[in-house]
Amino acid sequence: CQKKEQYWKIKLCINVLKAKNFERVEKLFQRCLVKVLNIDLWKLYLNYIKDTKGSLPSYREKMAQAYDFALDKMGMDIMSYQIWADYVNFLKSVEAVGSYAENQRITAVRKVYQRGVVNPMINIEIFWKEYCAYENSINPLIAKKMTEDRGREYMNSRRVAKEYEAVTRGINKNMPSIPPMNIPEEATQVDLWKKYISWEKSNPLKTEDHALITRRVMFAYEQCLLCLGHHPDIWYEAASYLEHSSRILTEKGDQNAGKMFADEAAAIYERSITTLMKSNMLLFFAYADFEEGRMKYEKVHTIYKRFLAMQDTDPTLGYIQYMKFARRAEGIKSARLVFKMARENNKTKYQVYVAAALMEYYCSKEKNVALKIFELGLKKYGGHPEYALCYMDFMSHLNEDNNTRVLYERVLSSGQILPEKSIEIWSRFLAFESEVGDLACIQKVEKRRAQAIEKVQEFEDKDTALLIDRYKYIDLYPCTQTELKAIGYYDLVKQQVVQAPSSSVTKAVMIEEDNKRQPEYPKPDVEQMLPFKPKAVVLPGSHPVSGGEFPPPPAAGSL
Amino acid sequence: CQKKEQYWKIKLCINVLKAKNFERVEKLFQRCLVKVLNIDLWKLYLNYIKDTKGSLPSYREKMAQAYDFALDKMGMDIMSYQIWADYVNFLKSVEAVGSYAENQRITAVRKVYQRGVVNPMINIEIFWKEYCAYENSINPLIAKKMTEDRGREYMNSRRVAKEYEAVTRGINKNMPSIPPMNIPEEATQVDLWKKYISWEKSNPLKTEDHALITRRVMFAYEQCLLCLGHHPDIWYEAASYLEHSSRILTEKGDQNAGKMFADEAAAIYERSITTLMKSNMLLFFAYADFEEGRMKYEKVHTIYKRFLAMQDTDPTLGYIQYMKFARRAEGIKSARLVFKMARENNKTKYQVYVAAALMEYYCSKEKNVALKIFELGLKKYGGHPEYALCYMDFMSHLNEDNNTRVLYERVLSSGQILPEKSIEIWSRFLAFESEVGDLACIQKVEKRRAQAIEKVQEFEDKDTALLIDRYKYIDLYPCTQTELKAIGYYDLVKQQVVQAPSSSVTKAVMIEEDNKRQPEYPKPDVEQMLPFKPKAVVLPGSHPVSGGEFPPPPAAGSL
Repeated sequence: CQKKEQYWKIKLCINVLKAKNFERVEKLFQRCLVKVLNIDLWKLYLNYIKDTKGSLPSYREKMAQAYDFALDKMGMDIMSYQIWADYVNFLKSVEAVGSYAENQRITAVRKVYQRGVVNPMINIEIFWKEYCAYENSINPLIAKKMTEDRGREYMNSRRVAKEYEAVTRGINKNMPSIPPMNIPEEATQVDLWKKYISWEKSNPLKTEDHALITRRVMFAYEQCLLCLGHHPDIWYEAASYLEHSSRILTEKGDQNAGKMFADEAAAIYERSITTLMKSNMLLFFAYADFEEGRMKYEKVHTIYKRFLAMQDTDPTLGYIQYMKFARRAEGIKSARLVFKMARENNKTKYQVYVAAALMEYYCSKEKNVALKIFELGLKKYGGHPEYALCYMDFMSHLNEDNNTRVLYERVLSSGQILPEKSIEIWSRFLAFESEVGDLACIQKVEKRRAQAIEKVQEFEDKDTALLIDRYKYIDLYPCTQTELKAIGYYDLVKQQVVQAPSSSVTKAVMIEEDNKRQPEYPKPDVEQMLPFKPKAVVLPGSHPVSGGEFPPPPAAGSL
Repeated sequence: CQKKEQYWKIKLCINVLKAKNFERVEKLFQRCLVKVLNIDLWKLYLNYIKDTKGSLPSYREKMAQAYDFALDKMGMDIMSYQIWADYVNFLKSVEAVGSYAENQRITAVRKVYQRGVVNPMINIEIFWKEYCAYENSINPLIAKKMTEDRGREYMNSRRVAKEYEAVTRGINKNMPSIPPMNIPEEATQVDLWKKYISWEKSNPLKTEDHALITRRVMFAYEQCLLCLGHHPDIWYEAASYLEHSSRILTEKGDQNAGKMFADEAAAIYERSITTLMKSNMLLFFAYADFEEGRMKYEKVHTIYKRFLAMQDTDPTLGYIQYMKFARRAEGIKSARLVFKMARENNKTKYQVYVAAALMEYYCSKEKNVALKIFELGLKKYGGHPEYALCYMDFMSHLNEDNNTRVLYERVLSSGQILPEKSIEIWSRFLAFESEVGDLACIQKVEKRRAQAIEKVQEFEDKDTALLIDRYKYIDLYPCTQTELKAIGYYDLVKQQVVQAPSSSVTKAVMIEEDNKRQPEYPKPDVEQMLPFKPKAVVLPGSHPVSGGEFPPPPAAGSL
């Protein structure tokens, strides 16, 4: 994983540095420095430059470049004071001969100071004091004006630095980056990171410069992704934030910055699906929708195709979203081409047929095409009750009683659906008949349904329970809940609740809710617990404790 | 309740018998004897006749009538031997002068013996021996033939008596008749009764006489109803069994018996809804359906009207079933009259409007009438999200995008639906738009939905969770379950699971299932539990027990 890799790299850096294997160090830094915005790694990098380039004639330029590079990437870090201070000291130590060179040096030092004293970080106060001292040492007369000019902004940044420290307190930047575990420690970290990010979003510096806000927010996201790179929401929210900033800047008239941030959003998406999120559909779809929003339809095709080309993933939802995009952006003909691709892929599941059929019905209003697609799917997924139920649902919308009836009969008599899975279909058939059929029809279906249930579970003498389904309507029942339970209706519903193709997520949520309601406590074994009897005088042979006794323990085997 | 009443009656009988208040006894027997088929009560009755009518000139006739009456009603009881034996002894004791009278007496005694020795009951063997002895005492020559003739049938009945005894073992006929409690003891009794009844249904006597089987089964049901009269399934199953027998006998060509059993079925229904089941819809509806099956439509109208005339009941489901009957039996015009009645009743709930509208759509194919009814209902139930969802569901079946969109907007902007109840509607709106809308439409609805959710619950920084609903399809999700949980999607679903107008029964069943998985144990308070330390030598001041000691208990307040 990324974070572990980072550790390993830092460790390796230290080792290769110790071994003075400079060639490998160089390659390592090239590979990971920009990707891993970790303050310790960057400090190591600066030390490396200092150690290795000291003897070169271009040392001063190289070193200044390195500092500028580091401050550009890591200057916003709350722990960046040392880099700022080192840079100043480095500049101060540069030899300058003549007043022109000396003035240049002063300008350079002043520039770094002036950037740093308004940068929220720990020890900003020290940096401010050093700056004031520096200005005083140069010219006490203009020092006052210089520091007064910057004083207000420094005060602001000092306040922000305090908040920054408070809002990042507790964040464990060394947390290993692993897939979500849903354990409390993880939830706490996620929460802390999100609080930090939304603090940055709230513009604590109270600046008018939206690009600066965005850069600070993105720095927070980048830091967060080093730890939470396996959490899809962080990636998505980072990209959305960039999209949001892009829109704001474009609205303000800054087309270039707008375009740049939009491209950065795309880059975030791209990075997510090429690295840690490479099998996460959510980010593929969000990326595709983002590019669709920018009208880059060719790009969208590429994104969906990249997802669909992956092995070891279920392509079904991918095809469905691709089809929906094609319909929205290019019309039904394009969507049909996607559906053709889906049909030719033998990993595709039934939901694609449902989606395609309903698209024809709801979007292009082609009832007959929809029916044809459902029929085509029935050949392939006739054994899936979930598919049959979707088809039946559609058919009953069409309000053609006989066709609906024929479909029920076809599916139920096909022998393709396992008895335990057919009960839900029988129940729907009964609901349909009690809506449109006569009493004899209703009773006939009821009887056949009872036989189907009988096959699956012991349901002797529970005719009354089956009758309930004839009379219930939406949430109205013809008996009280106590009566329903007493006549065995719960056993029937249980069967259906378990069999019904309901969402696994909803089920998981309900079960989790219930687990919360009834936590399972560890229970002591009280089998051999002895009752305590308060007594003034304790008989010999018993087990006395102050104030009474325990009876002798039961003889072995007497329990 | 009925059973308590029975006790009270028997008790009272005994008291009034003791007090020789014969007039009251007579009235009591008239009121309850036929209703309460309890063997002890009937024995009391016979004693009463014996005691009070002994001095009358018509004593012999009256007594014989009483015995015949008792055997007719209670002769099938497993404990009826004493009545059979008493009757024989009574007949034997009758004075008979002359060979004609003596022969008449022999015939009468023989008749009772011959009915009794083939009647499964405890002590049937004794009765058989007595019979054999009796025949021998009269004429040893024909005795052999007589007993041989009946021997096979007696053997059969003796076998059945054994089974009878076994299958009724454990049944508590003195169980008080109270509404279902759903406690294990009750379930055991229900189970035992049902086993006994289905044993009778299985024709243990192996007779060809279906009327006899039916009488025996109905005797079992009557006995059962004395204890389980508050269980609607017993009533319904008793009536269905009679209906079933009626059909069998009619098919066999016995129109009269068929008609008789059908009328008896009606009588059982009638009894149920006039006594213990008078507020149970299930029996009203089943009764109505039974009469509908016999084409007695006027009767059906009376039944529904009786139900709807009741105070203190929710008439909604009654109107719905009444409407469905009217449509099936008499056509849509009749159903519309029922809907009119329903509209005029201010206790009616929204489901009636849904049922009426869907009936117009599905049965009479009157789309516009259906729409009018839905509109009418919206005026009345605009604040009920359940109603709005039914209407929206219908509207989207019609496949008219703009009307559907307008309806969503109307309902959501009406201000009639509470924010916490509107989320489900927003989710449906989103599903609708992601089926037919373009990306901008989808995003707009998503945004408004997020605002609605924000109003109800803290949902900060959970944008990704909301995005899931854009991409999910049937049961496919764009993330793994772990990821879904980590990004907070479960919290969103939880809200919807709780808010969704799903069936209370399904929920109750799911919760019960979960309770089963995790029973809540009573837990001892272990807060002050002291660890036991095995020790050879125990220090003074500690709490020694054999083999070790407990540390001194913590000082008060130290926990």
